[in-house]
Amino acid sequence: MAGSNFGNIFKISTWGESHGKALGVVVDGCPAGLPLCEEDIQIFLNRRKPGQSSYTTPRNEDDCVEILSGVFEEKTTGTPISMLVYNKSQRSKDYSAISEIYRPGHADYTFDMKYGFRDYRGGGRSSGRETIGRVAAGAIASKLLSELGITILTYSKSIGDVEIDYNRFDKNEIMKNPLYMPDADAASKAESLLKEKMAEKNSVGGIIECLVEGMPAGVGEPVFDKLDANLAKAVMSIGAVKGIEFGDGFAVATSTGLTDNDGFKCEDGIIKKTSNHAGGILGGISDGSQIILRAAIKPTPSIASTQNTVNKSLENIPVEIHGRHDPIIVPRAVVVVESMVAITLLDMLFMSMTSKLDTIKKVFNE
Amino acid sequence: MAGSNFGNIFKISTWGESHGKALGVVVDGCPAGLPLCEEDIQIFLNRRKPGQSSYTTPRNEDDCVEILSGVFEEKTTGTPISMLVYNKSQRSKDYSAISEIYRPGHADYTFDMKYGFRDYRGGGRSSGRETIGRVAAGAIASKLLSELGITILTYSKSIGDVEIDYNRFDKNEIMKNPLYMPDADAASKAESLLKEKMAEKNSVGGIIECLVEGMPAGVGEPVFDKLDANLAKAVMSIGAVKGIEFGDGFAVATSTGLTDNDGFKCEDGIIKKTSNHAGGILGGISDGSQIILRAAIKPTPSIASTQNTVNKSLENIPVEIHGRHDPIIVPRAVVVVESMVAITLLDMLFMSMTSKLDTIKKVFNE
Amino acid sequence: MAGSNFGNIFKISTWGESHGKALGVVVDGCPAGLPLCEEDIQIFLNRRKPGQSSYTTPRNEDDCVEILSGVFEEKTTGTPISMLVYNKSQRSKDYSAISEIYRPGHADYTFDMKYGFRDYRGGGRSSGRETIGRVAAGAIASKLLSELGITILTYSKSIGDVEIDYNRFDKNEIMKNPLYMPDADAASKAESLLKEKMAEKNSVGGIIECLVEGMPAGVGEPVFDKLDANLAKAVMSIGAVKGIEFGDGFAVATSTGLTDNDGFKCEDGIIKKTSNHAGGILGGISDGSQIILRAAIKPTPSIASTQNTVNKSLENIPVEIHGRHDPIIVPRAVVVVESMVAITLLDMLFMSMTSKLDTIKKVFNE
Amino acid sequence: MAGSNFGNIFKISTWGESHGKALGVVVDGCPAGLPLCEEDIQIFLNRRKPGQSSYTTPRNEDDCVEILSGVFEEKTTGTPISMLVYNKSQRSKDYSAISEIYRPGHADYTFDMKYGFRDYRGGGRSSGRETIGRVAAGAIASKLLSELGITILTYSKSIGDVEIDYNRFDKNEIMKNPLYMPDADAASKAESLLKEKMAEKNSVGGIIECLVEGMPAGVGEPVFDKLDANLAKAVMSIGAVKGIEFGDGFAVATSTGLTDNDGFKCEDGIIKKTSNHAGGILGGISDGSQIILRAAIKPTPSIASTQNTVNKSLENIPVEIHGRHDPIIVPRAVVVVESMVAITLLDMLFMSMTSKLDTIKKVFNE
Repeated sequence: MAGSNFGNIFKISTWGESHGKALGVVVDGCPAGLPLCEEDIQIFLNRRKPGQSSYTTPRNEDDCVEILSGVFEEKTTGTPISMLVYNKSQRSKDYSAISEIYRPGHADYTFDMKYGFRDYRGGGRSSGRETIGRVAAGAIASKLLSELGITILTYSKSIGDVEIDYNRFDKNEIMKNPLYMPDADAASKAESLLKEKMAEKNSVGGIIECLVEGMPAGVGEPVFDKLDANLAKAVMSIGAVKGIEFGDGFAVATSTGLTDNDGFKCEDGIIKKTSNHAGGILGGISDGSQIILRAAIKPTPSIASTQNTVNKSLENIPVEIHGRHDPIIVPRAVVVVESMVAITLLDMLFMSMTSKLDTIKKVFNE
Repeated sequence: MAGSNFGNIFKISTWGESHGKALGVVVDGCPAGLPLCEEDIQIFLNRRKPGQSSYTTPRNEDDCVEILSGVFEEKTTGTPISMLVYNKSQRSKDYSAISEIYRPGHADYTFDMKYGFRDYRGGGRSSGRETIGRVAAGAIASKLLSELGITILTYSKSIGDVEIDYNRFDKNEIMKNPLYMPDADAASKAESLLKEKMAEKNSVGGIIECLVEGMPAGVGEPVFDKLDANLAKAVMSIGAVKGIEFGDGFAVATSTGLTDNDGFKCEDGIIKKTSNHAGGILGGISDGSQIILRAAIKPTPSIASTQNTVNKSLENIPVEIHGRHDPIIVPRAVVVVESMVAITLLDMLFMSMTSKLDTIKKVFNE
Repeated sequence: MAGSNFGNIFKISTWGESHGKALGVVVDGCPAGLPLCEEDIQIFLNRRKPGQSSYTTPRNEDDCVEILSGVFEEKTTGTPISMLVYNKSQRSKDYSAISEIYRPGHADYTFDMKYGFRDYRGGGRSSGRETIGRVAAGAIASKLLSELGITILTYSKSIGDVEIDYNRFDKNEIMKNPLYMPDADAASKAESLLKEKMAEKNSVGGIIECLVEGMPAGVGEPVFDKLDANLAKAVMSIGAVKGIEFGDGFAVATSTGLTDNDGFKCEDGIIKKTSNHAGGILGGISDGSQIILRAAIKPTPSIASTQNTVNKSLENIPVEIHGRHDPIIVPRAVVVVESMVAITLLDMLFMSMTSKLDTIKKVFNE
Repeated sequence: MAGSNFGNIFKISTWGESHGKALGVVVDGCPAGLPLCEEDIQIFLNRRKPGQSSYTTPRNEDDCVEILSGVFEEKTTGTPISMLVYNKSQRSKDYSAISEIYRPGHADYTFDMKYGFRDYRGGGRSSGRETIGRVAAGAIASKLLSELGITILTYSKSIGDVEIDYNRFDKNEIMKNPLYMPDADAASKAESLLKEKMAEKNSVGGIIECLVEGMPAGVGEPVFDKLDANLAKAVMSIGAVKGIEFGDGFAVATSTGLTDNDGFKCEDGIIKKTSNHAGGILGGISDGSQIILRAAIKPTPSIASTQNTVNKSLENIPVEIHGRHDPIIVPRAVVVVESMVAITLLDMLFMSMTSKLDTIKKVFNE
């Protein structure tokens, strides 16, 4: 009940602190027979690594993943897949200055309130490094989804006030710029913005967008385990996410029924929607069209400007957070959002397998 | 796994269709010793009833709740509390016209895709009447929270483009107008808007805001069961919700670290935040300040205007949804959001009881 | 977390007290498309009703079940099935004498220790009537299993020291005698024993045996959710069960590897075991042969003989439990064991559907 | 849902195969503030190691545990504790002979039926080495229980037909003989029996008994999460266990109400039972007296005698399982039973913390 588990059938348990010995994840519920190797995982993990550009963390983290169980002769066996990344340097000294203070925008204070004390080294369990386990598991979920014809595209939609222009949307551009934006022009403007904010010892937020293609209709459970409800939990559980929306999202508040409703039409015997304001989910169940979601990411809380805070001796003190901090969380969070979406979609696909007696008969009366 | 269960320690299981015999909920995990009677529940249920004004459903639903178990001599016993509301009239005939078509904006199509067929009477399980079970359980959770000094205020923040003015914010006004707005002036403008939209056979959306006072710091689990993650799932699981945000929410995307970070200060030996952009949650854990969340609610999908759709014979046909439909979902959803928030907060308070060995020793070594 | 929920995919939530308004169950996770009517449930419930013979409770309980949701046009819809039995007479007066004392062998004392007080009417939630919900859910699980070719045979193996003789085993005899024994001769001897024990104001225990035919090989999860582990929990959760065993059970303690191991042989291309000491489960996974389990049931704790106990005023007092109590629990528990086995088998069949990638591809790439 | 997770609040996820890179466990839900070091875990793991005597495996396995997360400055932090044991030698060659055959009494056949193939090296996930994760987690649970005054004593009650004599019962003897028997005389006889069975290329079973002292009354949830139900699942999930019983266990079948009921008495204002046939659990809830349970363990299935089996080419063949196999599982399983009991008791203690409103108020209104 301590919250490091996620999923119902495809279940993950993550563990590890920023400056502990290692971080990792146990994936239980991956079916047998999926070809899998460490390279499949490493490709995903590399997407959350800091880059070489000036606005991403200059630390040299080479986060090499090891698969310790659950794979035999290059295929998953159906038993738990344990994966781990050792922390190369544990650098406790770098962070000792913050052991007695509560950094604004961080979880230092709430961890102390909850547990009575905390592993203060680099944020401990509340560090962004916690997402290593999510991404490693997400790599497996994504690979399995692609075997079923389901693909996920995730990117930075906006950084600060720089937003992509859908007229210039280029899927192939996403991996070409360090900001993971599908619009080279916007990426270039955003880089300028980030340089400016770094010079100001400040940071900015942004929006991540995620599109899912190939999801069959009928996945998601009515009432509490709606597809969007579970996706909302999955994405909101990522540190720094402050909002999530589907399809037209918050814009529905000022829309009308006539506009927001998606009509249906039949073409060549196939039922389709005439628009997709709903973002691919109706009544919590996938409708077969593209799933669209967006997450709002807050600015990096670690900034070099002076802020007001309190130390454990209850003194009011100024604080400046120095060190190697990105002025933006968005680009590195793109693969984390994609991973959480993949894990949730797969889990709910599995959950949907018992919706109809006919499906069950098909499985057992072969 | 079919999604009608919610909660980890304070668990609810809802059931029932719009036009079935009854709807209800089983609450398992309510501690023994809480004074409880049917009136406590009925007050909450009445808040989701349609009013008498022209823009809310004119149906006469008197949804009387019965407590069937779990209460003895006017106190909860610790065993499951089963509550039920009988459907007074089952009116199957009213809805037979829609049995063969897929209403735009409704879950008719996705239910058929998922299950092969559906209970088409009034939307069946996907009807707004499904929320009766949530609200009945929410009444219990709210009562228990108030015993611990935690209170929840929920209201309509905007209806269409009519938004409340915080300078005119009056908590006591909320229950005085049928739109549950804390600003009489905005409520009056919103009523005009709704009349206009009804005349146009159209409908509008809006935003619900929820404020929690008295939540102790330290509640919420790191990583997946963050307080905001579980609240996001809870609220997003309500039909018609298309987005959720906490604190500054989507505005963080264009904010900066300097603005968005909440500083800390110590006054009279008590640590407080100097602002509350975070909305009371840091790293997924309550920080002791007010919890703030907002949900975007889509326009009522049932509208009398002509829309394009398809029937089960795969014919493209026009459809007009007549009947007693509100042009706005927001006001009736206010108590549903409050209920889901209450259930989640209580569940997570319970989950937090084992965070520290000291707390456990206090409980068992009395 | 209060323990009235069972199952992972096929989930049940039971509720109700012996002398409350009603008892019932919500079944969530029953697939759509199963033909189901109240008669299907009633047949099962009638098997737990007291008979007319002298050694079963002479109370006239006619426990009529009502289905309140989840069934439409005589088929399950995939949404929760709520079922309820109203308590005809609530007879509070009969039981008021026991409100202040702790009956030996009952849960009165432990309920008071756990909750601070209890619903003392007829045992409240700890009454045997609690099993109504289990049996109603078991009827659905059994019907669904039979659609998949899986059948369960449950009966009284022994009552006191009267044991069935497998040479006289007659499956059709089970429903013919009120003790549900598959051996008419043993049933007759057991009836004499029960008369004797009643005259002595005493009671006896016995053993229930359960055989499952048609279970496909490969069901059950390694490690914690072994098929036998989940069955053990399911059956041990029935009041009065004090032990459970599979296959040779406790006899393995004095057996040897040479005897206990079941060999394999291949006949006409089909692999079979040459014996079944394991009781159909190897490594927690079904092996395709008959599943065999036995549960030990304690004697009825309510006896008219004088026993020593304590009242709430902490006085040592004698107590005699008068009223309409069977001198044996075994026969009425037969259908409860069968129900719990059915629910568990179905849930684990569903869990096993994601063991292989091939099965998943078969379901989604149709 | 793949079954490698156990527990509700104190949750464990185990992973690893006999001959994979490593085996381990993630413990989520351990409260912050428990002093913990690797030595605490190693002491427990050493109890499941093979000894030097002739009847236990002569392999030199030094299973050194590493704690990778969740402990900071020698105390648990409340975040997941990841522990791992590397497999020193992976010895694939030793086991290659069995890759194509189904060993009688092992899970080879059922794994193939479930997953389509298996990691055949040393039994893979179905090996006894799987219990390393259970025991590591059990060490933590036991340490925490002892902080609350709860202690567990587990030992071999019988080996083959050699049973301990309670008149010679000596708690301190348990750790002195390699069979973990509390009776030196019985241990000596059992050693002779084992030598005899080894010479015969055969093996024997036995019974493990477990006694819990200090468990407060009121722990365990009515209906499905009864204390004995969850213990039954926990213990039955250990490979080789074929039966479990509580208190008088299977003997209740031939007992009577007068004998089996435990009376109550009050001495010096304290309520006690006059006997303990129930084994410390009434109605699924602890009654404050000693908890007593016993598990039946089957003989080691790996024996050097010739047995009949089948290979993957469906040929009927003889098989002799050579290698370093104990002729008895019981002694090494003693600490595994103790671990599973500890994990379950702790989890249920945590679950019981929300039974009463008074307890909750005490925690939050400090």
